[in-house]
Amino acid sequence: MQIAKVRGTVVSTHKAPSMTGVKLLMLQFIDEDGELLPQYEVAADIVGAGIDEWVLVSRGSAARFDIGSEHRPLDALVVGIIDTVTVENRTLYSKKEQYR
Amino acid sequence: MQIAKVRGTVVSTHKAPSMTGVKLLMLQFIDEDGELLPQYEVAADIVGAGIDEWVLVSRGSAARFDIGSEHRPLDALVVGIIDTVTVENRTLYSKKEQYR
Amino acid sequence: MQIAKVRGTVVSTHKAPSMTGVKLLMLQFIDEDGELLPQYEVAADIVGAGIDEWVLVSRGSAARFDIGSEHRPLDALVVGIIDTVTVENRTLYSKKEQYR
Amino acid sequence: MQIAKVRGTVVSTHKAPSMTGVKLLMLQFIDEDGELLPQYEVAADIVGAGIDEWVLVSRGSAARFDIGSEHRPLDALVVGIIDTVTVENRTLYSKKEQYR
Amino acid sequence: MQIAKVRGTVVSTHKAPSMTGVKLLMLQFIDEDGELLPQYEVAADIVGAGIDEWVLVSRGSAARFDIGSEHRPLDALVVGIIDTVTVENRTLYSKKEQYR
Repeated sequence: MQIAKVRGTVVSTHKAPSMTGVKLLMLQFIDEDGELLPQYEVAADIVGAGIDEWVLVSRGSAARFDIGSEHRPLDALVVGIIDTVTVENRTLYSKKEQYR
Repeated sequence: MQIAKVRGTVVSTHKAPSMTGVKLLMLQFIDEDGELLPQYEVAADIVGAGIDEWVLVSRGSAARFDIGSEHRPLDALVVGIIDTVTVENRTLYSKKEQYR
Repeated sequence: MQIAKVRGTVVSTHKAPSMTGVKLLMLQFIDEDGELLPQYEVAADIVGAGIDEWVLVSRGSAARFDIGSEHRPLDALVVGIIDTVTVENRTLYSKKEQYR
Repeated sequence: MQIAKVRGTVVSTHKAPSMTGVKLLMLQFIDEDGELLPQYEVAADIVGAGIDEWVLVSRGSAARFDIGSEHRPLDALVVGIIDTVTVENRTLYSKKEQYR
Repeated sequence: MQIAKVRGTVVSTHKAPSMTGVKLLMLQFIDEDGELLPQYEVAADIVGAGIDEWVLVSRGSAARFDIGSEHRPLDALVVGIIDTVTVENRTLYSKKEQYR
């Protein structure tokens, strides 16, 4: 999985029927130092992530391995909202500190 | 999914039998600032996207998860025509403004 | 799918038994301006493409979605010989002009 | 598979139900000379790898081919702790030397 | 498939049970001019490739499409030892010449 920050939303009304009801988030990837990368992914959200939160995103066929996603032409899925990222005993990110 | 702009079409008459009847679009990818990238994808179209429209494209096995695509050797599919892309309360793209 | 030009062939006699009878082409990718890229793919050919022809290549699990390919460890397949590539009403490539 | 070094952990409490009980490691990729690359992957761990160990990571659908992972939206999995990497009769890495 | 040169081996004793008995080769990719690229892949070997031989490697789910590999978390597989690579009537590589 990669780490990404929720930056916005994408709306599409004219789409494949199987995409109905899917909430699409605009994510921007985070590098190993916690900085934003010039790369994004539009991913389906099943965990209710909000703007600026850090999330875990799975890509490829993994995006269809959740309830309700099995038959949708998805290739990216938010699978969790991140609480903490710890690298060599250093806290790279903590949701609590971000939002206090 | 990635965001791409419809740039043209690709025609192939001598092809795998299972590819018969598939409309192939030439897409060019869009970066997170809304600019064209020097990268393209030839994708099957099931939503009837037109030249210059922004679309969502799914790649990999996701391209075969729609009615009629299950048995085709596709690795890219247009899954929706984009209405709006919103980043941090700013509208990066709006189909209405583009075409008014 | 990506667009590629047939550049040559690869021969392997000592291989996985399931690869028997597969014709392997050396393809070089084409960019969005019609120029050769320094990237190649060795792909199975089921359409009988010849040297210098432009073809459509599918990668990933799509390479196994054709008759006879289902059980082979393939990750790239030539799915069609390209007749024309049209970008914004301009013909980027036409097989007829190429060979007349 | 790629070679990576275990650098840390990622914690997510609000996640897809199927992700419950998955231990997530922050891995940093290693290049062919044994140096750290500026690329990471968050992968599920089933072998109990520890900080600073070199591991083998499988990506894509391979990440769901182990006991307990079949129905999880995973796209990266630690499949083994590396003992030695040997290139042209030279030992690039040896776990014993690393930890003695 | 990509072309790679066998450079060495990777040994892992503490691994996923389904990985037992898999021989892992350290491969380095070859570019379209026959030169080594600074990119590698650790792949399972089912054809008995030796050091310095050029091989064909399949990546992704293709790596599990051979006898004995179906249930292993593999994402890269050596599917054949290359005899010749021919580009535009020029022999880029010939195993016989390499070993005579």
